[in-house]
Amino acid sequence: MTDLHEKKKRLILNLFEMNCVSHITHGLWRLPGNNRERFNDIDYWIELAQLLEEGGFDAVFLADVIGTYDVFRGSAATAIREGLQIPSNDPLVIVPAMAAVTKRLGFGITFSATYEPPFAFARRISTLDHLTKGRVGWNIVTSYLPNAARNFGLDGEIEHSERYRRADEYLDVLYKLWEGSWDEDAIITDRENNVYADPAKIRRIDHVGEYFKVEGPHLVSPSRQRTPLLIQATASEDGINFAGRHAEVIFTGGPPELIKKTIAGIKQSAVDNGRPADSVKFVVGAEIVVGRTAEEAAEKLAYYQSFASLDGFLAHASLDWDPTAYPPETRVADIPEASSGLGRRRRAPDPDQTMTDLLDQFRTFGSKFHFFASGTPEVVADVIESWLDDVGIDGINLIQFHTFDTARDFAELVVPELRRRGRLPQVPDPDATLRDRIFGAGDRLPDYHYGARYRGGVLAPIEDPAAELASFPEAVA
Amino acid sequence: MTDLHEKKKRLILNLFEMNCVSHITHGLWRLPGNNRERFNDIDYWIELAQLLEEGGFDAVFLADVIGTYDVFRGSAATAIREGLQIPSNDPLVIVPAMAAVTKRLGFGITFSATYEPPFAFARRISTLDHLTKGRVGWNIVTSYLPNAARNFGLDGEIEHSERYRRADEYLDVLYKLWEGSWDEDAIITDRENNVYADPAKIRRIDHVGEYFKVEGPHLVSPSRQRTPLLIQATASEDGINFAGRHAEVIFTGGPPELIKKTIAGIKQSAVDNGRPADSVKFVVGAEIVVGRTAEEAAEKLAYYQSFASLDGFLAHASLDWDPTAYPPETRVADIPEASSGLGRRRRAPDPDQTMTDLLDQFRTFGSKFHFFASGTPEVVADVIESWLDDVGIDGINLIQFHTFDTARDFAELVVPELRRRGRLPQVPDPDATLRDRIFGAGDRLPDYHYGARYRGGVLAPIEDPAAELASFPEAVA
Repeated sequence: MTDLHEKKKRLILNLFEMNCVSHITHGLWRLPGNNRERFNDIDYWIELAQLLEEGGFDAVFLADVIGTYDVFRGSAATAIREGLQIPSNDPLVIVPAMAAVTKRLGFGITFSATYEPPFAFARRISTLDHLTKGRVGWNIVTSYLPNAARNFGLDGEIEHSERYRRADEYLDVLYKLWEGSWDEDAIITDRENNVYADPAKIRRIDHVGEYFKVEGPHLVSPSRQRTPLLIQATASEDGINFAGRHAEVIFTGGPPELIKKTIAGIKQSAVDNGRPADSVKFVVGAEIVVGRTAEEAAEKLAYYQSFASLDGFLAHASLDWDPTAYPPETRVADIPEASSGLGRRRRAPDPDQTMTDLLDQFRTFGSKFHFFASGTPEVVADVIESWLDDVGIDGINLIQFHTFDTARDFAELVVPELRRRGRLPQVPDPDATLRDRIFGAGDRLPDYHYGARYRGGVLAPIEDPAAELASFPEAVA
Repeated sequence: MTDLHEKKKRLILNLFEMNCVSHITHGLWRLPGNNRERFNDIDYWIELAQLLEEGGFDAVFLADVIGTYDVFRGSAATAIREGLQIPSNDPLVIVPAMAAVTKRLGFGITFSATYEPPFAFARRISTLDHLTKGRVGWNIVTSYLPNAARNFGLDGEIEHSERYRRADEYLDVLYKLWEGSWDEDAIITDRENNVYADPAKIRRIDHVGEYFKVEGPHLVSPSRQRTPLLIQATASEDGINFAGRHAEVIFTGGPPELIKKTIAGIKQSAVDNGRPADSVKFVVGAEIVVGRTAEEAAEKLAYYQSFASLDGFLAHASLDWDPTAYPPETRVADIPEASSGLGRRRRAPDPDQTMTDLLDQFRTFGSKFHFFASGTPEVVADVIESWLDDVGIDGINLIQFHTFDTARDFAELVVPELRRRGRLPQVPDPDATLRDRIFGAGDRLPDYHYGARYRGGVLAPIEDPAAELASFPEAVA
């Protein structure tokens, strides 16, 4: 049994969160007892972090947007009514509050590589990695909302493949700062001679590229992970090439066949970039409703479903046409606008679908994110095991219907079952970094990773023309 | 007595801190028991915040730089050896950890208006103001280190007066986001009709200026203060004009006569900008060594002084010539390079000074920051009262010799004495915002402040072309 358990793939268990009212299960902020409205309050995040850590979660995965959803019905009005990711608070600054009350919980933080200067971001993440003792992951995105571009001085979005080219150089700057700017033994702490750090072991980065120019050195000494765990949410062609070079964890979705294809494509891309195929882990969004009995689970799901708001889902999808404006029996094929598809990230609809079918698909849980399970802890664990072993994923971002009930239900009912099945560790290592917890191969980026190339003193050290002059401290009484 | 006490000016009491090893008392990180090396550790900040809150401090004032001191001896080597503000971690992300363990302590956060996009900064500060329930102040700087400019894509510093013009527009963008983008009653929380917020009460900012283009709306709902308490560290001509328009608290320094002049100039500038003269408070850096007896204080000062590192002070001052390279009896007048002055912020040296005099001045506490007191609690309180009443300051940023001893000594010995004298409140209001604690006139920017002009619906509301179409939620079982 022990051997068999050891061979089993361990589940990466994250809670999917966002610093806002309505993240992804629109309308459900109105559920009695739902805490989502408290997102402005530091106690919300403290309570959540403690619940997750005690409940056996690996990390909280924080989504983010830096603009509003203003495509559906030509304005942000629907998003605003729905509390759909507006207000949306900064994800990075809630992490230290959660870190202050936990020892083990990881933090996946979404941040766009498109609009803010890399030097400041590198410093913030390094500071956070110090504060959390190595529990930080960065979900790399390039941002898709046109309003986001207009909030940062542009007239519209940068074209998709150029965003990825730019992100590639952004990562290059970051690797130089995180991996190459401070040698491992730069900090000396020699009290007698008053030398805190050795200038010969701290390096400028002198980056001059197509998009960025950054001198350095990095302002932060090496944190436990140096480079945070690199996460990427992607499925596009440019995204796959980028992922093969950089990503350690991929957040993806879709039906099993598509996910298998995504996994195969990214593993191949990793191999093409000199990395082992198993150097990338795959996490999917998961809608899970669990009950002590099948009936309890079904009732809970129906109850949650009764609060779902169709407009929220349509606005979130950024549909540029309005399926609610047609008679229910109208077929997709009869609506010219429908040829533009089902908004951001969605493929073309089935031409024979009626509006009723289509709208039901939008508002019905289990119809969109493709990882869906509802039932007893055993049923849920069966579905998770089948996705781990048959589809090939490594983990889930648990989607919340009710905050904090969804996380609490999972912790109380499903986590013990997954531990029994050897899919979650019995006693998590309280001292492990996020990267080490997931890969079990140390705190740092592996040597074969692209970002490791700047290590080992390849960058120019700080000039020290007056080293021989250095007057060591003189006491003055 | 009560009347007399009520008329006394209350002291604003801040601890001067920085997320680094050697902030401003160079060499003293080596003092036995000094905790400064622990700055990477979240527990350092948690312990400090608790000590300050319990000790009666109003706020922790966090300095920052985003580059290295590389002028002295032509390189950053001296700064690196000294731990002089390198490593230097991000100041903003330690605040939520401190907020998680306090209820009342304020946070003054230094952030440069020169290099990062205003939209992202506005969002981070609003999120922090929510998390802290209104305890955030922003110390507005425009950055002075040439290396900082080179870390953010420029070849060198933007010229001083242009930096202020740019900062002026930066503030304009921020006021639109903080004060004008969300009406006071925008959040509705109507569960029955599934309306979280009212689109008619949320406004784009549509800012198009010389330096910035930002559409909005702001992504964060109104926090308790909306605009954080506006602090500015300045004394320059451009700085004084800027302060008259924007600043609520000025962090300044120098000998009493200069401070009196600075205060008069900025009060006049405030009046010229339609504000009352008393709408700006003045805070100075203060070197204070207190003991239970005069002897204890003198011994402590001598002990601290014995750890002072001359090189650290010279590098911090950014001297572009090296006074240690001349025989001790050389006069300033005999050194041509000395005509460039005493580095950043320093005026020309006395031509008759010898190198010995000059170097002693650099390394001797009490010779530079001009607010200096050493002695019993009564003596220290006397000096504070004379600066409050005769020089006209309103508060101090207490400079640390030893962390946490300096703050603890002040809390244990001086705070009770200042309370006895009516200079500090007996029981601080646990629920007050930082602005209200300092001005006693509410949480928000006063109506006469420049930033208030964007309030009251002057910006364009979100378009809502399909308001009549809005399909309110339909339940699906």
